[in-house]
Amino acid sequence: LRKIMMPLGPVVVFGAANFPLAYSTAGGDTASALAAGCPVIVKGHPAHPDTSALVAEAITKAAQKTSMPAGVFQHVPGRIEIGQALVSHPLTRAVGFTGSLAGGKALFDLANQRPYPIPVFAEMSSINPVILLPKTLNETAKPTAEALVKSLTTGLGQFCTCPGLWIAQVGEGLRQFEGFAANILTKVEAGKMLHQGIADNYHTRVEECLNQYGVELIFGDAGSGKGLEALPVVAKVNAVDFLTQPTLQEEVFGPFALVVEVEDRHQFTEVVSKLQGQLTCSIWGTEEEMQAHSGLLNLLLEKAGRIVANGVPTGVEVAGPMQHGGPYPATTDSRFTAVGPDAIKRFLRPVAFQNFPEGLLPERLRGW
Amino acid sequence: LRKIMMPLGPVVVFGAANFPLAYSTAGGDTASALAAGCPVIVKGHPAHPDTSALVAEAITKAAQKTSMPAGVFQHVPGRIEIGQALVSHPLTRAVGFTGSLAGGKALFDLANQRPYPIPVFAEMSSINPVILLPKTLNETAKPTAEALVKSLTTGLGQFCTCPGLWIAQVGEGLRQFEGFAANILTKVEAGKMLHQGIADNYHTRVEECLNQYGVELIFGDAGSGKGLEALPVVAKVNAVDFLTQPTLQEEVFGPFALVVEVEDRHQFTEVVSKLQGQLTCSIWGTEEEMQAHSGLLNLLLEKAGRIVANGVPTGVEVAGPMQHGGPYPATTDSRFTAVGPDAIKRFLRPVAFQNFPEGLLPERLRGW
Repeated sequence: LRKIMMPLGPVVVFGAANFPLAYSTAGGDTASALAAGCPVIVKGHPAHPDTSALVAEAITKAAQKTSMPAGVFQHVPGRIEIGQALVSHPLTRAVGFTGSLAGGKALFDLANQRPYPIPVFAEMSSINPVILLPKTLNETAKPTAEALVKSLTTGLGQFCTCPGLWIAQVGEGLRQFEGFAANILTKVEAGKMLHQGIADNYHTRVEECLNQYGVELIFGDAGSGKGLEALPVVAKVNAVDFLTQPTLQEEVFGPFALVVEVEDRHQFTEVVSKLQGQLTCSIWGTEEEMQAHSGLLNLLLEKAGRIVANGVPTGVEVAGPMQHGGPYPATTDSRFTAVGPDAIKRFLRPVAFQNFPEGLLPERLRGW
Repeated sequence: LRKIMMPLGPVVVFGAANFPLAYSTAGGDTASALAAGCPVIVKGHPAHPDTSALVAEAITKAAQKTSMPAGVFQHVPGRIEIGQALVSHPLTRAVGFTGSLAGGKALFDLANQRPYPIPVFAEMSSINPVILLPKTLNETAKPTAEALVKSLTTGLGQFCTCPGLWIAQVGEGLRQFEGFAANILTKVEAGKMLHQGIADNYHTRVEECLNQYGVELIFGDAGSGKGLEALPVVAKVNAVDFLTQPTLQEEVFGPFALVVEVEDRHQFTEVVSKLQGQLTCSIWGTEEEMQAHSGLLNLLLEKAGRIVANGVPTGVEVAGPMQHGGPYPATTDSRFTAVGPDAIKRFLRPVAFQNFPEGLLPERLRGW
């Protein structure tokens, strides 16, 4: 009895709006599906149709040059209905998706309702909570504010790993931290978002969050830019108001962060235990203070695919130990990663050969 | 950056009706979920409530003796609604199921419709096609018939890997094979099936198949036993009638086999290419004849999780290279196995630790 990994079959890829290269037509989903031996059909993203077409042309040329089978890669631009038809096609065997919760969930449902259900690997939404432990924050309010504001505003916050929720305990350290953050933010210039859809959504969601009960501005305003333009906004809310208004846990794609002010250790645990699934969670504190909050640390393991200590979640290393994925609604399947070599595991299935003559085994299984 | 596998969380297990021990309360699903570090809640099977309760008691005692946390294992007997409630419970994180297609698919749908969808590993239905290549069959009609009838009737065919579909080319070899099979079957005594539900279903499904257009008896009859009793039944049908009547591809749980008679090489390929997903496919032929049918062999790889050469699919070795799983409707996820050490992979998710002080890493990640 010998076992080998085989390709699942044709994979339909929906690229991200925010990364026309790394997470789209020639992104990680396409690369890992091809590496697994699966043909790929990319549904071109309407936010960058020309880039997608150019990249697709390059892939097609490369496939020809390397004598890969005809049709191993295909690029299909067009409306959402075309994407749905691709997911429903009887020959499709898996789907890779990067985008909104609504979009990913709709494809997930469609794929599960097929006569032959197929897996959908959708990376959808994450607010990437950052936990600031009180003793450490008292001593490092300024560098912490500098690091978080930089991570929040890089690329105008258009990263799936943008840190959008900062959880800290009320006190002098937090007061100083908020002051430093507001001060640093005054120096951030307005920028243009990647396209109108992202910008409109940002402005709407910021306003929605600011309209929730008990939410107060720390920096910026509900206008937060016009048209394509966007400005960072940071607001705060107490733990009780945060926990009773679920929309405050929904992603705001762009440079928006919400400070959740907890009263004490007990409320810290309460807020963290109620967090939805995330791509990342970060925790700032000395080793000693983290040891003293080991219960909090254990909770984080249930919430996210990647835990960062004293660092920011933006910057996703393409490496073996990377886990870019997390419990729902961060992704549809926390057991897999969209980044790093393990991404290939999504598109493979094992096949066992029993009692086979050596000459009929796949080449890689011979001579064992 | 370092990565470790963590338990998914509480797993609900629905054991098989046909294996009160190996595939039920203390079966592979329970063992692999516990090994992954997941608490297990077994929904006791109504077909063997007392066995299930006894086994559950033994597990609970063992958990106490080894100082495992209270509640690491729980046993819940009762109606189907209780199983549904367990799958819908917000804290449940995965489901293991062995049983019918209807039952498994219903739980799969329920799990996907939760606010937080969870994976269901359902092993559901397989008719385990056996392909008999013509030249070899001509020379080995008798031993082939002996082996297949023995595999078909062991345990009165109440195995998920029971070979229920025999595909062969018309000719003298097949005529002899059918004669030998009928002759051997006359010596098989009637037996009692495991419980009334299985027996009733067997009798109904056999009658259903025999009523399909073009289906002719080789051995047995539509009565096929009464009450708990069951007798083996073997019938035949030509390829065209097989392909146009989908119910002939649906599992008949018990000692029923259907011979699909193909006219030529082309029809062989046509029948195999239209097969649904299976746990196993078997192929009988010399190495030379299999080489000459390499296209057929490649098709089999797409259809099943385990391919057997010149052997029977019953007898599932619990070993590293075992793949007990296959494309839908054999299981809900062909990327995983329900048997062997790899079964643990179903219940684990990776978590990456970035920039963590050594002392705060899980023990297994320290010192790398």
